[in-house]
Amino acid sequence: MIQFLVDLGEKTYPIMIQPSSLKNIGTLIKEHHLGEQAVVITDQTVMKLYGNPVRDSLQKAGIQFTFEVVPDGEKSKSLNQASKLYTKLIQFNLHRDGMVIALGGGVVGDLAGFIAATYLRGVNLIQIPTTLLAQVDSSVGGKVGINHPLGKNLIGSFYQPRLVCIDPQVLATLNKREIWAGLGEVIKYGLIWNNLFYTFMEKNLIAISELVNWDMISQMIETCCRIKAEVVEKDEKETGLRRILNFGHTLGHALEAVTDFRYFRHGEAIVHGMHFASYLSLRKAILFKSEFDRIEIMLHRFQIPKLPKMINDQNLFNKIGIDKKQTKEGLHFVLLETIGQTKVENIPDLSKQISEWLSYVRK
Amino acid sequence: MIQFLVDLGEKTYPIMIQPSSLKNIGTLIKEHHLGEQAVVITDQTVMKLYGNPVRDSLQKAGIQFTFEVVPDGEKSKSLNQASKLYTKLIQFNLHRDGMVIALGGGVVGDLAGFIAATYLRGVNLIQIPTTLLAQVDSSVGGKVGINHPLGKNLIGSFYQPRLVCIDPQVLATLNKREIWAGLGEVIKYGLIWNNLFYTFMEKNLIAISELVNWDMISQMIETCCRIKAEVVEKDEKETGLRRILNFGHTLGHALEAVTDFRYFRHGEAIVHGMHFASYLSLRKAILFKSEFDRIEIMLHRFQIPKLPKMINDQNLFNKIGIDKKQTKEGLHFVLLETIGQTKVENIPDLSKQISEWLSYVRK
Repeated sequence: MIQFLVDLGEKTYPIMIQPSSLKNIGTLIKEHHLGEQAVVITDQTVMKLYGNPVRDSLQKAGIQFTFEVVPDGEKSKSLNQASKLYTKLIQFNLHRDGMVIALGGGVVGDLAGFIAATYLRGVNLIQIPTTLLAQVDSSVGGKVGINHPLGKNLIGSFYQPRLVCIDPQVLATLNKREIWAGLGEVIKYGLIWNNLFYTFMEKNLIAISELVNWDMISQMIETCCRIKAEVVEKDEKETGLRRILNFGHTLGHALEAVTDFRYFRHGEAIVHGMHFASYLSLRKAILFKSEFDRIEIMLHRFQIPKLPKMINDQNLFNKIGIDKKQTKEGLHFVLLETIGQTKVENIPDLSKQISEWLSYVRK
Repeated sequence: MIQFLVDLGEKTYPIMIQPSSLKNIGTLIKEHHLGEQAVVITDQTVMKLYGNPVRDSLQKAGIQFTFEVVPDGEKSKSLNQASKLYTKLIQFNLHRDGMVIALGGGVVGDLAGFIAATYLRGVNLIQIPTTLLAQVDSSVGGKVGINHPLGKNLIGSFYQPRLVCIDPQVLATLNKREIWAGLGEVIKYGLIWNNLFYTFMEKNLIAISELVNWDMISQMIETCCRIKAEVVEKDEKETGLRRILNFGHTLGHALEAVTDFRYFRHGEAIVHGMHFASYLSLRKAILFKSEFDRIEIMLHRFQIPKLPKMINDQNLFNKIGIDKKQTKEGLHFVLLETIGQTKVENIPDLSKQISEWLSYVRK
């Protein structure tokens, strides 16, 4: 078992990575004294796959619990769904010292996390991420939230879980597309923070994507979580350093928005976004051509959808404006100095850069 | 001008108490570097009374702003109203480094505070409380939230303001009933924390209720805020000490709930609740009879509505069960050892005690 702490003072919490740990969640909760009442929030797909083992484990541990199953997909991250869940939690009579368990991918984690953060001014939150993306990204770091009809993640807060329990073996039930999308965020950690890890990923990308070795996958997840934890420890509320985690995300979000969040998985859009950010780093003479080539080769190996024809510089640029990372000083862009090292810069000619990048990728 | 800090580490913020400070809010915001964009959330009554001076002051300071006016009263503390406000903030394009200004009483403070806490994962919050209750209680301490059809304040979080700006002179536009309700919470601070302050209030209750001396009123507000700040500093998230601020509130909330939140003002219900808590302290042989008599004389001077006939031990006790302060160990009750000193005890025979208290007050 891999276990380490995210050190956030009073809010410090452990991340545990262990194959088959899903079956022992009840014991883990007991060992960490996280409460005796639980509302498990999950979606339909995850409920079918993992509802039973989680139920059995909670039952065995003597925890009083109920399951709340939301529809699959991003649409559940709504104020309307949140409102229904509040009612369920009240009807279940979940106390202040009870807990919310987020069992699922990013959507479930964000939604359940927001509920935990705002029900009775905050109850214990346990994250059990079941997608690669959630395991290496959204379950760690305390960002929780829901969408607004005018934009994604516009409503939310920073709320740290009390425990993150990662069972890598659940990845076996994901389809290939989900795995590749998750690997997009994995690569990001190498690019922004750790050259060695990036090299490891270059060597093992295919083996990992085929889930041939659980130890290797556990190590990979651990490295991602440790990097994210280190960044979050230094900047919990995203006032500075944490922005580097948004590498590839400014354009990535815009790609998702232009295509109405239907064409790309989040991680897929981020792969294109990282390509743009690397291209921009090259154009601004911050990144060497040899490094850019290495990145491009890696990203081209990703089995993800290409940019659709309806994408153009105009619609893409328009969607970047409403990204919530914007401050009054303009748009700060996370660029690369080298593999493993970022540099944040203001980009005044972003529209032109997007246009040229589109020509480049479509050449 | 009175100014002091609520010391909460990174979240430390100043409370300023000054007659006429409302007219200088723009300057204060500038001096504290709180941003250049503001959404002022207020209600219809406060807008009529103080919209103009606040608008002029923000304009003079060069702050870009808009007003969002919600209907008067508790009904605005709803998820529905919150949803509308999110839309307004997004349409105004409020950035992460912008601010929400809560201009009003407890309802506006709680609602606007919740919006500030959850919009873009948190923007700066400035509290300008305009009722006595809000000035001495709800604007300090970071409790923000909205109601759910099944109960009050069930949705919310702990979110500290960046500045609390109190202008005592706005109390001149409150009606007498509002003043007396606020004085209920004022007395509470004497009872739970400071015998000397309680004696000061015994001497000056009438003069204060008639607003004859702004210096005296400023001092009174300062003492309340300092006590609340001290308690909150020691227990921000209400895991222990902070519970003493709920003195009188368990029964008070039940009185409000039984009467459908229409008969009593919050502070009025708390006065009855403090009488019950004092009576219970006497009955449990924790409080001397002489002290109880002193408290009873004080509370009888309050110009507030009596208990209505429809209140009985059954409906009162039933409403106490759903109070969110309940934990799995049962109902902890804040009692008095003496004026200025509390003691928290578990009360197993609460139903019987309520019944006897009702007979006592109706004798």
